[in-house]
Amino acid sequence: MSPRGRRPAGEDTRGLIVRAARAEFGDQGYDRASIRGIARAAGVDARLVHHYFDSKSALFAEVLDVPVNPAEVIGALIEGPPEELGQRVVRGFLSIWDDPAFRAPLLVLIRSGLSSEDFTDQVRGFVERDLVGQIVRGHPRTRALPAKERRLRAGLIGTQMLGLALARYVLRLPGVADAPAEVLVARLGNVVQGHLDA
Amino acid sequence: MSPRGRRPAGEDTRGLIVRAARAEFGDQGYDRASIRGIARAAGVDARLVHHYFDSKSALFAEVLDVPVNPAEVIGALIEGPPEELGQRVVRGFLSIWDDPAFRAPLLVLIRSGLSSEDFTDQVRGFVERDLVGQIVRGHPRTRALPAKERRLRAGLIGTQMLGLALARYVLRLPGVADAPAEVLVARLGNVVQGHLDA
Repeated sequence: MSPRGRRPAGEDTRGLIVRAARAEFGDQGYDRASIRGIARAAGVDARLVHHYFDSKSALFAEVLDVPVNPAEVIGALIEGPPEELGQRVVRGFLSIWDDPAFRAPLLVLIRSGLSSEDFTDQVRGFVERDLVGQIVRGHPRTRALPAKERRLRAGLIGTQMLGLALARYVLRLPGVADAPAEVLVARLGNVVQGHLDA
Repeated sequence: MSPRGRRPAGEDTRGLIVRAARAEFGDQGYDRASIRGIARAAGVDARLVHHYFDSKSALFAEVLDVPVNPAEVIGALIEGPPEELGQRVVRGFLSIWDDPAFRAPLLVLIRSGLSSEDFTDQVRGFVERDLVGQIVRGHPRTRALPAKERRLRAGLIGTQMLGLALARYVLRLPGVADAPAEVLVARLGNVVQGHLDA
């Protein structure tokens, strides 16, 4: 069977490539993942990957776009009593990470952002703008603070959320990797709330 | 000039290679760093690197061993009032990371541990055993807790310390990357202390 005969072109093939790319980027990080490896995992010819995506970085951008619409997710978390925003943030964060469909692209983001300077800016922008920036703007007391203090609090919350993702899902640190989600919601929700209320 | 004539062999050459390796591993991560690149950075022939170190992983182990003796550093932090242990931990952690001589090998550790599955175990072991495990054993109230609860608290402190390193030194998240150390000591020392006292 010729390689280009393996799969028909079309929407499904594109989706197949994106799913394979997500897994490859997640396993290998951006730098080590290759179009050839992605094509192999998708069961298609590398030329077919190039037909849909100009470059590895175009494919990566596609993978990053898929997972979650952070504006929507965080917008939903912000609804509710401000004094429980910290807990809602941690609960929402864990429910996204604990869903295998989301975890793979998020692992891509975190691994690639940390291992390759090329993507540090991208990940920093995502965390600052779409993750913690939105949270502090969603709390009435924090929103009213001067920009510098608000930015500090967003950053402090960022350390906690990044560290949680890293310890639980990447490093699999005992005590955190095996803790029930609600234990983490209680203990770390409190930490996030402290930064919002302080 | 022949490559092997560039530098005399001996202690200085070995030290030169280790310093070059530390910088290369830090910049490139474990997987992308190469003996050839390290030799080039050290201004020596690659054969000379092989003369001192059997393999890239032997060189990496050497680099990891250099930075800090965590037992000593944390032993020193534990001395003092238990109600300020959280602040001392954050202050000690920042003073190590803010010292360029230590930051480079620590960046190696964190980048390599996160980007390459091969080193996840090594970094997890370091964080669990040498970093947070020692801290919770150094606090009288936490030390007396059942092992499972102590492990959870060590893990929670681990999320904060990892996230701080990541946000401030790797991702350079605004608000945290540019905060004075003492601001972080006050705000995050409080978080660590909360996990110890809770």
